Amino acid sequence: MSSPRNILLVTCHPEPRSLNGALRDHALEVFGRLGHRVEQSDLYAMQWQAVVDARDFPAEEPGARLAVGAASRRATEGGLLTADVVAEQAKLLRADAVILQFPLWWFGVPAILKGWFDRVLSNGFAYGLTAPGARNSSRYGEGKLKGKRALLSVTAGGMTSHFSERGVNGRLEDLLFPVTHGTLFYTGMEVLPTVAAHGTNRVAEEQFAALREAYTARLEGLFSDAPIAFRSQNGGDYDDDLTLSPGLGEGTSGLALHRR
Amino acid sequence: MSSPRNILLVTCHPEPRSLNGALRDHALEVFGRLGHRVEQSDLYAMQWQAVVDARDFPAEEPGARLAVGAASRRATEGGLLTADVVAEQAKLLRADAVILQFPLWWFGVPAILKGWFDRVLSNGFAYGLTAPGARNSSRYGEGKLKGKRALLSVTAGGMTSHFSERGVNGRLEDLLFPVTHGTLFYTGMEVLPTVAAHGTNRVAEEQFAALREAYTARLEGLFSDAPIAFRSQNGGDYDDDLTLSPGLGEGTSGLALHRR
Repeated sequence: MSSPRNILLVTCHPEPRSLNGALRDHALEVFGRLGHRVEQSDLYAMQWQAVVDARDFPAEEPGARLAVGAASRRATEGGLLTADVVAEQAKLLRADAVILQFPLWWFGVPAILKGWFDRVLSNGFAYGLTAPGARNSSRYGEGKLKGKRALLSVTAGGMTSHFSERGVNGRLEDLLFPVTHGTLFYTGMEVLPTVAAHGTNRVAEEQFAALREAYTARLEGLFSDAPIAFRSQNGGDYDDDLTLSPGLGEGTSGLALHRR
Repeated sequence: MSSPRNILLVTCHPEPRSLNGALRDHALEVFGRLGHRVEQSDLYAMQWQAVVDARDFPAEEPGARLAVGAASRRATEGGLLTADVVAEQAKLLRADAVILQFPLWWFGVPAILKGWFDRVLSNGFAYGLTAPGARNSSRYGEGKLKGKRALLSVTAGGMTSHFSERGVNGRLEDLLFPVTHGTLFYTGMEVLPTVAAHGTNRVAEEQFAALREAYTARLEGLFSDAPIAFRSQNGGDYDDDLTLSPGLGEGTSGLALHRR
């Protein structure tokens, strides 16, 4: 039995009676049994605003040219972010682990979840950080969310074999690299290998029982399983130009170069 | 001088006076000179609805469980999609080439553009198609949008070298694979290598002149440049299980396996 932790469970399916909803309920049951405390962000139920625009930065001068990154920085540092964004950032800061449960749409996250990244992970909160005296930015293994864990739980219509390295869609973990590496690991989080439910247009009862069992094991291992071995930016594997040092990753190519 | 064609230019930046806006204006100028006809979808100006939900399928029984793929299929086949989606599909059908101009946010498209994919590329329009008698679905090089060309034009804050294969972010074209391969090529389109403007938090006048010049050349080559050599699903490179045939892609790994 692990010690009680704080979990943030983010879900984003328009239909609560979906497989995504059932997996959400299952996660809640498992976390309840483990004694973890769970906060939820059900983005559809919250009617989460997906789109970054001038309304995100109410303290900017009206009519001024909007430079998104700079405005985000000023709003973050000045405590001037909107209440919905501040609430999500507080949930992230309280969490020891974040679960993102989503249907794979066009080989990525649904727009509403992309909009959660675009708005919540503001400049000065989740990126743009530099430790005092540091040569490089604090990202890719360092950052404000370091020490937290993250897990993607994905449902996909296609067959498992189609998402293997030689399968027609490409390897699932490569398709999700912009999320696991470029978003979550970027902010400092340790990211676990993705949990995937495949062929989800037709999940029979016995399949769902197997899915649930596999998911249980992954949720139980949330704080003990090995994360994806992404290389940290400032750990010595990248040189001064942030290029992978010669001699590393031999025999590999593509995105796999960025895993130890 | 190429013969006049129809172009769909999709843009999605909240600030018209941005680099994205300037690149949009530049593309309009070049296409004007070439005699092409341009339609635009300025997603922010249109206040494009980014989120798929029950409002997309007004003909579904109220209160019924929403299965997104099936509802999308019924709406597409029954002519029951919403007017905003129908208008975008008509633009796509008229276009000989589609340009997607966007800022790279969290190593992917902004939520509003993801929501354009999620809503416009409906089941029975852009996916779920099978040619009569065909063993496999008509996708990855086949489909309703076959014969059209697509080009991503991206602005990114990071340096060019950080987006090389060994750069800390990973290769830009691998990060965009879910869009170029998984979305555009999936629907049958030929996708050109991405045009990228890097270091865009600080673009000086002379840099912009160079960017503009490079972009001009790419726009002039829109119908003549070689597309990314993605392998078509049904062209013989994948076996009956849609796994890359033994002997192909030797010496390569990762997403590069899916390019000839």
